Amino acid sequence: MGPYPHESSTRPAQPFEIAARDGSARTGTLRTAHGDVRTPAFVPLASNASVRGLLPAEVADLGYDMVLGNTFHLFITPGHDYVRALGGLHRFMGWDGPIVTDSGGFQVFSMGHGSVSDEIKGRRDGRRSMVHEISEDGVRFQSYMDGSERFMGPETSMEVQAALGSDIALAFDECTPFHSDRTYTLRSMERTHRWLDRCVAWQREHAPAWQLLYGIVQGGVHEDLRAESTAYVAAADVDGIAIGGSLGQDKDQMREVLGWSLAGLPDAPPRHLLGIGDVDDILHAVAAGIDSFDCATPTRLARHGTALVCDPDRRWRLDLTKAAVAGSAEPIAAGCPCPACAGGFTRGYVHYLARNRELTGSRLLALHNLTFMAELMAGLRAAIAAGDLAAYTARVLAGDAPYRA
Amino acid sequence: MGPYPHESSTRPAQPFEIAARDGSARTGTLRTAHGDVRTPAFVPLASNASVRGLLPAEVADLGYDMVLGNTFHLFITPGHDYVRALGGLHRFMGWDGPIVTDSGGFQVFSMGHGSVSDEIKGRRDGRRSMVHEISEDGVRFQSYMDGSERFMGPETSMEVQAALGSDIALAFDECTPFHSDRTYTLRSMERTHRWLDRCVAWQREHAPAWQLLYGIVQGGVHEDLRAESTAYVAAADVDGIAIGGSLGQDKDQMREVLGWSLAGLPDAPPRHLLGIGDVDDILHAVAAGIDSFDCATPTRLARHGTALVCDPDRRWRLDLTKAAVAGSAEPIAAGCPCPACAGGFTRGYVHYLARNRELTGSRLLALHNLTFMAELMAGLRAAIAAGDLAAYTARVLAGDAPYRA
Repeated sequence: MGPYPHESSTRPAQPFEIAARDGSARTGTLRTAHGDVRTPAFVPLASNASVRGLLPAEVADLGYDMVLGNTFHLFITPGHDYVRALGGLHRFMGWDGPIVTDSGGFQVFSMGHGSVSDEIKGRRDGRRSMVHEISEDGVRFQSYMDGSERFMGPETSMEVQAALGSDIALAFDECTPFHSDRTYTLRSMERTHRWLDRCVAWQREHAPAWQLLYGIVQGGVHEDLRAESTAYVAAADVDGIAIGGSLGQDKDQMREVLGWSLAGLPDAPPRHLLGIGDVDDILHAVAAGIDSFDCATPTRLARHGTALVCDPDRRWRLDLTKAAVAGSAEPIAAGCPCPACAGGFTRGYVHYLARNRELTGSRLLALHNLTFMAELMAGLRAAIAAGDLAAYTARVLAGDAPYRA
Repeated sequence: MGPYPHESSTRPAQPFEIAARDGSARTGTLRTAHGDVRTPAFVPLASNASVRGLLPAEVADLGYDMVLGNTFHLFITPGHDYVRALGGLHRFMGWDGPIVTDSGGFQVFSMGHGSVSDEIKGRRDGRRSMVHEISEDGVRFQSYMDGSERFMGPETSMEVQAALGSDIALAFDECTPFHSDRTYTLRSMERTHRWLDRCVAWQREHAPAWQLLYGIVQGGVHEDLRAESTAYVAAADVDGIAIGGSLGQDKDQMREVLGWSLAGLPDAPPRHLLGIGDVDDILHAVAAGIDSFDCATPTRLARHGTALVCDPDRRWRLDLTKAAVAGSAEPIAAGCPCPACAGGFTRGYVHYLARNRELTGSRLLALHNLTFMAELMAGLRAAIAAGDLAAYTARVLAGDAPYRA
């Protein structure tokens, strides 16, 4: 018996079961070795093996089935061997539900392309990694932890994710930034496709038999490249499809690029949209047929004193550090079932905590913001099941859902 | 009906009921407007209206009856009027159990005496308050928040604590530092006694009728001054007695000074020892007749990656940031019932979190350390009730209690 006694020995041929549709939208169940994920799903980040400040039981209590671990950060520290020796990522972080791990590509390439990822920018000690060389093999870079030279290529990414023992691995990809030209984006996409084949080959031979693998669609903001990438990934031996890379400079372009990426996809595989979490974007993407999302926004906003609320005019954001909410006896959001709002904590209290950077403030807001997202996704699932998605979407866009304020 | 619907209208003549004794040690119940406190009690700090990173329900679940709010910090920000307008400190922070507030004297004087308190030192922005003038009236100082000149005297302290609505207020005192000479300590003590009378006069007239008031024994490290201060405070119209000020330069002197302070005390009033929380000090002080303690140590150690464990040889401390615990599959402490240890989290996981300053690490350690203290105090209460204090103390000093590792 291995370190994961309760998983099945092999992945199912068809891990995703669609229960209902409404237009292009789908609701269903994604079956993994560590349990089921109800879709459409929002996946909170547990980048460094924890959802910041929350215990696993709290995350589950908020209504989440799956969390996302960060392959790059866990590779740098504590290292995948460290996590494997402590029983794999599930046991390490005390989360026995499904885990998806990203490919590491976003972080490793965001260094090289000069747009260092927010996760890295956010490091309090200011240390950064630097890319030394990008080649067909992969990427050589300097570790932000100790300055040592490290390497990550498709096999490394797969090896790390196999050691972590995630339920869903993502193929190693180059995340081309918006400012890349067509020539670079094409060359990068073709390399990502070759890397996908190497990922599939390594993962199917060496990873746990139950680990699912998603390929990642790239191609930048070019319709023909997106179509080519979608076709390539769809034809590969993968269990699901993630859509990555630059989705454009604004929401209109993002929707256009998303449409190109989805156009050629087969119906059966589950579809994940990487790094998108704004409410209106989720509404659009669910209607377009996306099944899952991950995004740092809800927890990052919480750390900066901002709550998600039913207020489309302010992009669903309420900055509780502002003087306007000082002394307010209102809850963060009327009607919200989260531990902060249902617990009787006021905007005036959270304002005070956030201004003084008290841990309890970011914790209350993390609980609130993740509740908001969980309620939104539950509402979307119910609406699709009821054939009522357009009406529900209109209610969210009018500020009347996921709960009436 | 005021903002505190469930408190009794006046404080009881005898708020403290001693249920059992073992030598000079006592176990009993301290009755406050917001509920009972089992003694001997450790009182976690909620300096800035929250026990850092924990929700009130968690603090109660750990076995705590009372928390301590910081009069000085809450006076500076958000201000006592702000808290009062939001229903008082209980409603503000969502804790409906007993609250004791300190006098503000420790913080305000630690600025003036050059030994800025750790709470102030710990401010991330490095802003400090500075004392402008100490007089018979009180203290003028510069606020660390906005640089404005503020004033706190005995009436201010009582007014702030009345507005906060704490169950137990502490009289405003000068906390004389260890390096003060006898002449200064005497003069300061006499002023603290005059301030006590002013506190009693203000508090009995203006504070909520149910608010208890403790006087504070000062007198530095001088036997005759401690005896004089004890006699003065004991003769005042107070509900309990706190022992404050410098208790000496080492543990031997602390115990000697504590003995002098307790020698002349009447039996009935509850006795609080300010700012002391080391395990061996608590053992000694409980045996000497102390009923309650407050200390930043358990939560401060947690923020710095250190766990409290049954290891007297290392002052009950285990530094989980050390390389020696890297990769360890052991729990923080075998036999510990806390959410971290009982939840299956390993030393190796907490090591990783602490080294990366992840919020979840300090949260797990806060839950662990406060559980350790709660178990220690529960053990002491049970031992006194059983007439078994010496044996229990010996077990703690041998590393066999509060739980067997």
